Amino acid sequence: MRFATLRDGTPDGRLVTVSADGTRFATAPVATMQALMEDWDAHFPTLLAIDDYPHALAEHVVAAPLPRAWQWLDASAYPAHGALMDEVTGVKKPPVDFPLMYQGASDRFYAATDAIPFPSEDLGIDFEGEFGVIVDAVPMGISADAAMAHIRLVVQINDWSLRSLAAPEMKTGFGWVWAKPHCSMAPFAVTPDALGADWQDGRVCLDLQVDWNGERFGKANGRPMAYGFHELVARAARTRDLVAGTIIGSGTVSNENFRETGSSCIAERRGIEIVDQGAAVTQFMRFGDTVRMAGVDAAGRHPFGVIDQQVVSSQHYRP
Amino acid sequence: MRFATLRDGTPDGRLVTVSADGTRFATAPVATMQALMEDWDAHFPTLLAIDDYPHALAEHVVAAPLPRAWQWLDASAYPAHGALMDEVTGVKKPPVDFPLMYQGASDRFYAATDAIPFPSEDLGIDFEGEFGVIVDAVPMGISADAAMAHIRLVVQINDWSLRSLAAPEMKTGFGWVWAKPHCSMAPFAVTPDALGADWQDGRVCLDLQVDWNGERFGKANGRPMAYGFHELVARAARTRDLVAGTIIGSGTVSNENFRETGSSCIAERRGIEIVDQGAAVTQFMRFGDTVRMAGVDAAGRHPFGVIDQQVVSSQHYRP
Repeated sequence: MRFATLRDGTPDGRLVTVSADGTRFATAPVATMQALMEDWDAHFPTLLAIDDYPHALAEHVVAAPLPRAWQWLDASAYPAHGALMDEVTGVKKPPVDFPLMYQGASDRFYAATDAIPFPSEDLGIDFEGEFGVIVDAVPMGISADAAMAHIRLVVQINDWSLRSLAAPEMKTGFGWVWAKPHCSMAPFAVTPDALGADWQDGRVCLDLQVDWNGERFGKANGRPMAYGFHELVARAARTRDLVAGTIIGSGTVSNENFRETGSSCIAERRGIEIVDQGAAVTQFMRFGDTVRMAGVDAAGRHPFGVIDQQVVSSQHYRP
Repeated sequence: MRFATLRDGTPDGRLVTVSADGTRFATAPVATMQALMEDWDAHFPTLLAIDDYPHALAEHVVAAPLPRAWQWLDASAYPAHGALMDEVTGVKKPPVDFPLMYQGASDRFYAATDAIPFPSEDLGIDFEGEFGVIVDAVPMGISADAAMAHIRLVVQINDWSLRSLAAPEMKTGFGWVWAKPHCSMAPFAVTPDALGADWQDGRVCLDLQVDWNGERFGKANGRPMAYGFHELVARAARTRDLVAGTIIGSGTVSNENFRETGSSCIAERRGIEIVDQGAAVTQFMRFGDTVRMAGVDAAGRHPFGVIDQQVVSSQHYRP
């Protein structure tokens, strides 16, 4: 089953269910995604019974599936990416036996087609393609096995990053604030079962196609997470209850053979260049650049729809 | 002017205005603190006109002034505390010319008298007494001067910390997640002008009385922040719009003469012991321990009311 949120002038938008081909929708009997996550079991049977999608879905009216959330925790679950980044940034992390995670801005998630404003091209503007999950209420101290049942929806995210700020912020020990502005979300949130065999061990086993200014930049597969999403959820809940509607991200999708698959962020490609050629040659994004991201299955379908957006100057931008 | 939020069975509670002596309230014409922050200028004149407080205020019905927020950013603005912590934890931070800040859990703020559940005494349970501000919507890139006008309310916070997890998390560069569970807030949010001469240069110039298990532990003054709250707000907004209702914290209140004033967290006292005696002797909190925190003015009044709460085991706790 697949959901979207339509812009209706309110901060949370209007929840709809979407046809399997992503072209039509039905208004959901529960008004918002947040309300659905707060009482999934009560609402889901009614939603599941919907088999008529009377309205055509227009791309420009689609918001992020959860346009704002009470909590956003983003992990770094792909070891190929983490190891390369440590090597080239010179950030020395002690080895840890748990998934790394930071708390990010959750008060706004951009829609898949929104223009994204930044104050300066000097900040090292980068995209980060990743997958994520939305959970219902999760109690503190839950096990990874029990956490699996709390994963209600799967989403696709562009975790915008400002690389000039990232390494200095890491070195403070306080983590990222300014290097991690608001993220974008692909149009559709889907139930894990709707991914079929592409949802395995709490992992999204789809290729993530990433195109920068119309050219293929990466096509890494989501499978090789060191920890499944259920393990990320359990870790997130180690010392806190997770509020319904918490979003947990995978971190940049990355494969060991990233020289063949390409990358899901510019920083990784620059890291490969540093290792292979001694210096980064690929520059970060400029105002006017576009990025397109789409998980793709074996039949060429995009279960989450497509993120396709342009970076603009905040000086000349009015939302 | 002074506000509180009463528990009414909803997550956001019911906004009320409170008499100057903190004993009586009037129901506000705007239902929630969040709604007030989203349209302060429209609501405030009506609120200011209230001069009759018909109801007696009972402590147990008071929630946090903002029981959940879309964003919580906590700084570390007291240099005496920061320098000592760096020295004793061995975390080597490069010098920075901006205030340090991390993004914390904002989906729940405990009330001043709530019992606080933690999974284990081994986590290094600590309180952190601090002040904070609540802003209305702040645009990205604002100046510190312009940010001052967005500071609508001042609050007092207990930023619960789990010290056994804190230093290891800092060393990952991802910042704190598990070391920083939900915070508590004192009963009243007050307008800066209601603090009179105790609000100067964007700083709360009150002593913060901290009592642990009934004994005075600290009485540091809020004045010596290296950056005023307006500067913290401007820094927070460097690469993002701040959503209305964003809370910005000062970090642990601390003075250069902390050997005389005492401390606002156990970690600082332990740091002093390490420096002076070679080893920390004060232990962290145990289940059943209490902490009381209250900003106090020259007349002995507590503008934010009093935080007074007990730490309990999450194994035996049902909210």
